[in-house]
Amino acid sequence: MYSNIAIYTYEVDPFYTDPNKEMSIAAIVNHIQIAASAHADSCGWGFDKLSESETRWVLARLAVEMNTYPQLYDTLVVETWVEDITRLFSIRNFEFKNQNGETLGYACSIWSAINMETRKSIDLTSLSGDIMSYKSDKPCPINRPVKPLSIADTSFLDLPIRYSDIDVNRHVNSTRYIEHLLDLFPLDFHDKYMINRFEIAYQNEARFGDTLELHKKELEPLKYAFEIKKNNLETACKAQIKFKPKQSTN
Amino acid sequence: MYSNIAIYTYEVDPFYTDPNKEMSIAAIVNHIQIAASAHADSCGWGFDKLSESETRWVLARLAVEMNTYPQLYDTLVVETWVEDITRLFSIRNFEFKNQNGETLGYACSIWSAINMETRKSIDLTSLSGDIMSYKSDKPCPINRPVKPLSIADTSFLDLPIRYSDIDVNRHVNSTRYIEHLLDLFPLDFHDKYMINRFEIAYQNEARFGDTLELHKKELEPLKYAFEIKKNNLETACKAQIKFKPKQSTN
Repeated sequence: MYSNIAIYTYEVDPFYTDPNKEMSIAAIVNHIQIAASAHADSCGWGFDKLSESETRWVLARLAVEMNTYPQLYDTLVVETWVEDITRLFSIRNFEFKNQNGETLGYACSIWSAINMETRKSIDLTSLSGDIMSYKSDKPCPINRPVKPLSIADTSFLDLPIRYSDIDVNRHVNSTRYIEHLLDLFPLDFHDKYMINRFEIAYQNEARFGDTLELHKKELEPLKYAFEIKKNNLETACKAQIKFKPKQSTN
Repeated sequence: MYSNIAIYTYEVDPFYTDPNKEMSIAAIVNHIQIAASAHADSCGWGFDKLSESETRWVLARLAVEMNTYPQLYDTLVVETWVEDITRLFSIRNFEFKNQNGETLGYACSIWSAINMETRKSIDLTSLSGDIMSYKSDKPCPINRPVKPLSIADTSFLDLPIRYSDIDVNRHVNSTRYIEHLLDLFPLDFHDKYMINRFEIAYQNEARFGDTLELHKKELEPLKYAFEIKKNNLETACKAQIKFKPKQSTN
């Protein structure tokens, strides 16, 4: 078996499901972060420990590929492991299974650790303790997230940032951006198509008082690029979503 | 000790906390529903069982009073019990504690069970099995939620319903309304004041394609009434919030 894999299980409650009773991609991304945080904590490299030293993990890029989504009241099993650690990035992967051990999908995430005062990335290889010993040899079969192209020249929808968009880090929560992107499609589109691959790159924090501009561009049928800018200036995040038709369950 | 009390514990993860690292009222209302559902399931009167008979529990009214909110990474302990069952309503109460057993607050909720086809309430006393035997003698020290007054003559903010507002029941999720109400106040208001009592009455479902109108009226300093109408016609829900100044933690 592979080394250094952490396994977490979560119940898929109604709060985490979409109108089709499947776990939403926002909820999956949320659990990716909870599992990553739990694993980092258990290794001694977690949010709690790092926050004492004013350092915090920041999700830079993420790709999620799902063949099937967990259903309401299923158990989501998340396996997570660190593939590699470079000076600036930690690459952490995920395999998602259901309660029967069937693989539902995978994710690959790229994290940096920033100093909360300077807002600059720290050198991960300079951290005390042998962070390299937590690397795992388990392979991840999906492509890593790449830096998406800018599509900021397209038309956009203005969206003021609201109180409930803001999280404990006092910036727009990473899963809220995902909800804002999904809201660019009507309910009947989501009824017909599932997200096959979701990719996002977080670039700049947006804060209360900022205004977001949501850009969307169809790259090819069922494949869309997104860019969320703030105050018509900086890019908050870029994303790509590849949809595929749902298999009829009727 | 009191009879028929169910106890559930939940971790307060970053997803459930507000910008001040306290569990949000929306997350508390969500866990009220999760705990209620789990307890109803364990008693044999749950969503799963009732959905086979095309009956579903619907939250009609809710009052939450909090003296202190659970903090990030705390454990929220939820005690829940059924106070009374009438022909049309089940009255279910909650006590919230932290991991040290200290009481943080209480909630009182009123539920009806509706037939999904006729959308009408069913007679709870007509259900097979002895539902009355699940009543508890534990007291709840807060006032029951009352039917709030209409304030629909005040000015309002239009809000289109978006995909991510919609839940498994294919209507606007009950906690989303709460977020929409809290979004009527800026971040620095929430930094200064905490919700002491929150009360909501759900009246009509809003669905994708509907437009919400958010009404807000100050009743007295730090006490507000709200009404969310849909399509300038029916009332979706009414609410009241009493805030109080936060104790400085600095």
